[in-house]
Amino acid sequence: MALIVKKFGGSSVANPERIQRVARRVVETAQAGHQVVVVVSAMGDTTDDLIDLARQLTSNPSPREMDMLLTTGEQISIALLAMAIQELGQNSLSFTGGLAGITTEAVHGRARITDIEPSRLHGALNDGNVVIVAGFQGITEDGSITTLGRGGSDTTAVALAAALKADLCEIYTDVDGVYTTDPRVVKAASKLPAISYDEMLELAHLGAGVLHPRAVEFAKQYNVALMVRSSFNHNPGTLVEEVAAMEQGQIVRGIAHDMNVVKIGLVGMQSRIGNLQRIFQALAEQSINVDIIVTSVVHDAQSDISFTIGEDDLNTALDTLKTQFPDVQIAVEQNLAKVSIVGAGMISNPGVAAQMFAALAQAGISIKMVSTSEIKVSTVIDQERAHEAVRTLHTSFGLDSVQEAVVAGLDSNA
Amino acid sequence: MALIVKKFGGSSVANPERIQRVARRVVETAQAGHQVVVVVSAMGDTTDDLIDLARQLTSNPSPREMDMLLTTGEQISIALLAMAIQELGQNSLSFTGGLAGITTEAVHGRARITDIEPSRLHGALNDGNVVIVAGFQGITEDGSITTLGRGGSDTTAVALAAALKADLCEIYTDVDGVYTTDPRVVKAASKLPAISYDEMLELAHLGAGVLHPRAVEFAKQYNVALMVRSSFNHNPGTLVEEVAAMEQGQIVRGIAHDMNVVKIGLVGMQSRIGNLQRIFQALAEQSINVDIIVTSVVHDAQSDISFTIGEDDLNTALDTLKTQFPDVQIAVEQNLAKVSIVGAGMISNPGVAAQMFAALAQAGISIKMVSTSEIKVSTVIDQERAHEAVRTLHTSFGLDSVQEAVVAGLDSNA
Repeated sequence: MALIVKKFGGSSVANPERIQRVARRVVETAQAGHQVVVVVSAMGDTTDDLIDLARQLTSNPSPREMDMLLTTGEQISIALLAMAIQELGQNSLSFTGGLAGITTEAVHGRARITDIEPSRLHGALNDGNVVIVAGFQGITEDGSITTLGRGGSDTTAVALAAALKADLCEIYTDVDGVYTTDPRVVKAASKLPAISYDEMLELAHLGAGVLHPRAVEFAKQYNVALMVRSSFNHNPGTLVEEVAAMEQGQIVRGIAHDMNVVKIGLVGMQSRIGNLQRIFQALAEQSINVDIIVTSVVHDAQSDISFTIGEDDLNTALDTLKTQFPDVQIAVEQNLAKVSIVGAGMISNPGVAAQMFAALAQAGISIKMVSTSEIKVSTVIDQERAHEAVRTLHTSFGLDSVQEAVVAGLDSNA
Repeated sequence: MALIVKKFGGSSVANPERIQRVARRVVETAQAGHQVVVVVSAMGDTTDDLIDLARQLTSNPSPREMDMLLTTGEQISIALLAMAIQELGQNSLSFTGGLAGITTEAVHGRARITDIEPSRLHGALNDGNVVIVAGFQGITEDGSITTLGRGGSDTTAVALAAALKADLCEIYTDVDGVYTTDPRVVKAASKLPAISYDEMLELAHLGAGVLHPRAVEFAKQYNVALMVRSSFNHNPGTLVEEVAAMEQGQIVRGIAHDMNVVKIGLVGMQSRIGNLQRIFQALAEQSINVDIIVTSVVHDAQSDISFTIGEDDLNTALDTLKTQFPDVQIAVEQNLAKVSIVGAGMISNPGVAAQMFAALAQAGISIKMVSTSEIKVSTVIDQERAHEAVRTLHTSFGLDSVQEAVVAGLDSNA
């Protein structure tokens, strides 16, 4: 008997028929003798409908009340899924995030989980129930309902798997698993049977979309075995766990790309100690994620700073920068993309970055920015050349391969 | 500065415009320097929509999961109302029943409140917030979300008023207050400026519809001053409090009627000790409210028993009785109504029942059953004569009166 956490996103429970399909899948596992905890998101458009109601009342809703409002979406899903499972003759109990024992920090809209007290869930499991938990939500120590923000339901699933010492955490999605690259861009993309946390983290951060990086970080930290698999079939999916990649021959395991990139340049900043910190703290306070940062000293007293952010954050970033640094000239470059190669094998293969630059140069694609980590090289290039770059690198690093790839849409998880 | 609890039903918050109207009304009171706690029901059709979703999955949903599902309705309302109030520049915080400190017994679908721990609400009020609480719901000691069943939101409001030691509990409805009888039946019906708890209880039980009897009982028990008033105007409404009626000259204060009456007769029961108890316990286990009971001993060994129940409960009642007493003959009489006179002054005026019977006899209306309490006389008559009986009694007891009555629909409160 194993304890398995299964996470289903909003599209998997979008209507009663799909809820019944999830229920059957869950009951199969329970009837095979396993304990099952299911994490679900809000049904399809529920969240958007609730946001629309709020917008009719205020353009600036308080984050606390937005959380109070939006968490009803998952609460509806868990009750309905529990009913559908019961209808199949399997005992089941649903729990909101708070009632499942999930405590978060006192930040609304993007709280982090601080603690999980799993005794109530263990009790329900030991009484023979399939346990259903609302994803994306928790409660503060002083009793305010919170949401976890982007990737929240994935994070709920992994955190519960860690707290319950589950044997496996399955993330159900629209695709069969993690691919060497986006199968919509490269037909020859193939599914990876296994991948390490670090590789998955780089791929997740870089826009591979099947798993939220927060959840992967959590899984790595608590050593939770993750399985990314399709909710449409019983194929085995991709197992994310420690060391898997080390045993693999390939140096580069996947190619990721992200079309949502804007480059901001600050020209002629005073080279004063603390200026860099001031810039990025001001942006962080607006919850803007800065990705690649490049600085160059022009002369002793002045430096140029460039960095990339997501397209969505551009207006907020410009407002913030103009307010804080009224004297600095700001250059914005749009229509960019980031294309990256990822693989734990790079650590011991120093020529990989050079091979990447050569492949792109040969295709006539110019590189605007570069960023590297131990297991990743990212390049910023023109958006219109991005798909071509992905295909070029996929071929160059020997990933056009082996097994027939299943071409499917990539899901972005709530 | 007073502390005032205001309760608004589902039709008062049915859409964003109505929520804004409630918000303005609440902010008026707050700006006049009072502390305000608002109890709201689910928006208009939300509850029906949720029930419909559940029906698509199962014909027999578990009561626990129904409570988990339906309580999202009020949670949506409280968040939206808090946002609308904040939009008017007034601080406001919303709380689910459980987070407001409302503990109930562990019965789903119709739990009773066992305790209210008001410190979190007091804290929010003292910080200058208008406090919004979800009606109709609470939480069990071991953390299951419950609903209070019929009249739940009225009961939440009164219970909070008691726990917070509020100065007044206002129940907002579609009518101006409590009338001497249904203004749709008797044009000359007039609004009562004040009424005692016992009189209101009898009127509420008898179908006067503006206030749920559970809430009135609660108010009487904890001596909470209740005001029934319109959400459409600022008229003063009807104050429900102790002794109000005693100071009034009129013996009969109101005429109530209930069209939803079925009489069941059990003919030829064995006069065995415990049979009566067996009948009514069997019905109680099915949550069937039995109203008037009449028994008559036919001879030493046999007795006839008649009682009335609500039309809705007829099928369940017949199933139960046929199972438990297979040998007994069951007679059902439908198309009946109950017409009642209510007034605390009756206690010291023994001729009131006789006057009622005489008035009905003079109108040629035959009485099938009678039931009396200290402050009420109820008669069961043919349904088609019920409105005529109400008008006859309204005139006979001098209630065609005094002030011009506002003719308005009677609201049934969630």
